[in-house]
Formats: sequence, structure tokens, C-alpha cells
Amino acid sequence: MESNTRDHLFEKAKEFVYEAGQRIKDQIDQPRKIETKSNPNDLVTEMDQNTEKFFAESIRNEFPEHRLFGEEGFGDDIKDLNGIVWIVDPIDGTMNFVHQKRNFAISVGIYEDGVGEIGVIYDVMGGALYTAVRGGGAFKNETPMKMNETKVLEETILALNTTWLIPENPHVEHKGVEALVKRIRSTRSYGSAALEFVYVAEGIIDGYLTMTLMPWDIAAGRIIVNEAGGIVTTADGEELDMLNKTTVLASHPDIHSEIVENYVDLKQRKKR
Amino acid sequence: MESNTRDHLFEKAKEFVYEAGQRIKDQIDQPRKIETKSNPNDLVTEMDQNTEKFFAESIRNEFPEHRLFGEEGFGDDIKDLNGIVWIVDPIDGTMNFVHQKRNFAISVGIYEDGVGEIGVIYDVMGGALYTAVRGGGAFKNETPMKMNETKVLEETILALNTTWLIPENPHVEHKGVEALVKRIRSTRSYGSAALEFVYVAEGIIDGYLTMTLMPWDIAAGRIIVNEAGGIVTTADGEELDMLNKTTVLASHPDIHSEIVENYVDLKQRKKR
Repeated sequence: MESNTRDHLFEKAKEFVYEAGQRIKDQIDQPRKIETKSNPNDLVTEMDQNTEKFFAESIRNEFPEHRLFGEEGFGDDIKDLNGIVWIVDPIDGTMNFVHQKRNFAISVGIYEDGVGEIGVIYDVMGGALYTAVRGGGAFKNETPMKMNETKVLEETILALNTTWLIPENPHVEHKGVEALVKRIRSTRSYGSAALEFVYVAEGIIDGYLTMTLMPWDIAAGRIIVNEAGGIVTTADGEELDMLNKTTVLASHPDIHSEIVENYVDLKQRKKR
Repeated sequence: MESNTRDHLFEKAKEFVYEAGQRIKDQIDQPRKIETKSNPNDLVTEMDQNTEKFFAESIRNEFPEHRLFGEEGFGDDIKDLNGIVWIVDPIDGTMNFVHQKRNFAISVGIYEDGVGEIGVIYDVMGGALYTAVRGGGAFKNETPMKMNETKVLEETILALNTTWLIPENPHVEHKGVEALVKRIRSTRSYGSAALEFVYVAEGIIDGYLTMTLMPWDIAAGRIIVNEAGGIVTTADGEELDMLNKTTVLASHPDIHSEIVENYVDLKQRKKR
């Protein structure tokens, strides 16, 4: 992607994100209709839908040749990442949005022919904008984020859902995750993949391990973590599939291969 | 406690907390010496110690007849709660303080003859002050916190450490916790007991279940949760022991007895 094209896209992406964030903030205290999707805990609100609709309209007006890959169905039917594709999660952390009215984010990744060029994650209520442009470093607002310190696994904090400790979970052998939890300093769980990615980039946690993310949960975060110096792969260390559900390990580079090799044992490698 | 005495104490407690918070903020970016206490993950910094020292001096100057029950050893040797006792955690969430420079709190509970009269929890970097005076309701800054909505367990979010899912943990049968995790909507883990209490009071989570808290982790939070309409007991539903290490379940009233009765099976009831 040419740099002036990319600069223009980056400015527009931030503009759309700020406007979408303002619309959410304006309506944060209104009563809302909550529906469920794949299961009773997979929530969606009219705010997720309206926000994606806003992105769909904004992108089509401004960049009619681009495509949108989104969670709520207002985008295109995406089967490949040819050309320029905006991969958008209008509200990442919908459960937090519903229960907490904070700790959710707008996540926008822009890819060209499958390569992540721009990542923007906006912690709407916290007011922090996390961004990265490929090769240009990662930022929290105006402050660069860079993983400079060395890390040993014993002194790390990982974001990790309690689900992966349950034997019956269909994704990962719980014994390995148990051993990992015993080895590290502590775990956290914040309920928003996008925020967990940027917390890794910022270094307030050292890694994020999860089993069931969709491309829109990952698209911006992986670019931001990479640009901060971190590594993002599937939980078993493979290249991410940006078209399907996937496992993810995003972490500081010093601990990534150790977690993959010693602690992650996926139950169905093909279904990761 | 007479109400004018209590009002004066409440004002002073807030004054001390704000001043301590300002000192922490002034030095948040300075390099610090980190030591460990009972185990390699039980961190303490000179900031914990200096903050408690500040409380000890402030209380002794202003209220020489009061006693201080604190984490870092600058208080009194407390074997009972007779008279007025300030129970203080100078930095609750020291690991967050060290790793994140946010998501920690100052926690001050004031008890008279064992009865919690005043609770103040200050999210120093978030800038939120959570307070309660017995019988006077709970507040986040100036906004009342009150658990008005009804709750069903299936739709709740609980704060829960991954540790309690590990079979070898010495405190609770992990199978019960597993069943609880499967039943509820989701779990979170924030790494500060004081903040997890006030999040319950605020309703952004519905309960907080943990196994190893000390009196200074609990003193303010239990008063604030109670005043917001919640219930705080040991994990098996008994009255809290405010002199020793204890298990804790703080929650919305609609789900408390169900969690105690169906999901919490302590391994050593006497050691809770």
C-alpha cells in the first residue's frame, strides 16, 4: 500500500471510530434491547448493529471499492481477503457493554491482500485510542508502546478465561492450562479481546491466550501487538486464519514459544 | 458511634485517602524496589510501606486514641477490635500497581467495637472514590450505588480467580467452582479485592468469590457492598472473621445463598 493512501485511510479510520464512539457515548444510558446469538451468553444489542451499519455506510460512501468484513451482517460476504478489506467489530466486549457500560472497544483492522496495514482500537468509555500502522510502531493516544523489557514466564500476568481450566471445554487440554496458571504470576480476565490485545501491547499484561476468536476480534489487535514488538499466532503457534474462527496466543516475544511448546495442547488441531 | 463523630471521621478518612493518593500519583512513574513477602508472587513496594506510614502518622496525630490495623506493620498489634480501629490497605492490588500502574486502590475501613462504620475505597488512577457510612447508603463519587434489579444466576458475571479451578488448591473443591462457572454468564478477574468489592456494589459484576483475604482487603469493601444492598460473608455463608485470613463471597442478594449452598465446598472449614 502506498504511504499516502495509507495515511489517508488511517485518518479516515480514526475519524469513523471517533464518530462511532461518540454515538455510543451519547446513548450509553438509554435502555436497550438485548438479543442472544449463538448461545444465551452471546449477546448483541441494537447498538452493535447500528454501529456496524454506520461503518458500512461510511466506508461505502468514502471508499466504494473497499469491502467490509463485520460481525453483524451489514458488510460483504467475505470469502477471501483480496483487495482492501475493513475488518470491523463495532462493539468488542458486548457483555461488558451491556453489564458494565464500560470496558468495551471499537476494533477496526484494514487489510490489503491479506496483509494487516492499519489497526485502530478505541476504548470508548476509557477514552484511549490504540493504533498501529504496519512498520510504524504502536501507540496509545500519542505515546509509543514498545516491549523493551525482558520477561521470564514466572513473573508474567496472562489474560485467560476460566473456561479453559474446565476439563469439558472442547478446545484445549485443561491440564496444560492448569500447569501454565501454576507457573505464572497471575491471571486476569477483562472480557474484551480487543482490549486484551492492546493491554498486551501496552505491557500491562504479558500475554493473552484464548480459543474462540473471530477475525473481527483479532484484526486490529494483532497489528497493534506486532507493532509493539509482540507475537500473535494461533494458540499452537501457527499463522492466524483471518477468515475463520481461531485460537489465539498474543504475547511478549520472550514467553511465546515456551507457552506454545509446553502448555498448549489443542484437542482438535484442525478445528482450532 | 455518634453521628457528628462519624461525620468528622468520614471527612478525615477521605482527606487522608486523597492525600495518600496524590503522593502515589506523584511518584507513579518512578523506578521502584519490589520485594516479595509470603511467596514470590506476593509483592510489596516501598510505596505500600510509605503509604501505610502516612496513614499511621496521620491517624496518630489526629486521633491518638484510635488504633490502626494495617498490612505493612506500621500499625498496632491488633488482637481484638475494641474501640475505634482503622483497618487500612495502603495499596490493594500491589501486583497491578507494579505491572500496570493502575487498577489498584487505597482501602480504609473504620470499625467501632467490631462494627463497620465507614468504608472508603479510592481507585487512585481511575479517579473514582467509593464510600459508605453505615446506614447511609453507598456512593461512587456523588452517585448512589444500589442493587435494584433482580438477578438470576445464569445471567450474572462473577469475579473469580483461575486458581480456584485448580484441583490442588488447598481452599475449595474445584468441581463446585467448575459447575458455578458453567452455570453463570461469564467470569472476570481484576486483581484487586477492594476494586472487586466496589464493582459488586456498582453492579458491573454480580459477585466476587475468593479464598484468601486478610481483614484489610475486606474492611472497607464489605461496608460498601452492604450499603449498596449486597451480602458479604465467608464463602460458605458464615459471618466474616475480621482478625484473620478468610474466604469471602460478596454478591447481589438474589444469588448469594444459591452460590453458598450449591457450589462452594470448602476443603477445611476451620481454616477458611
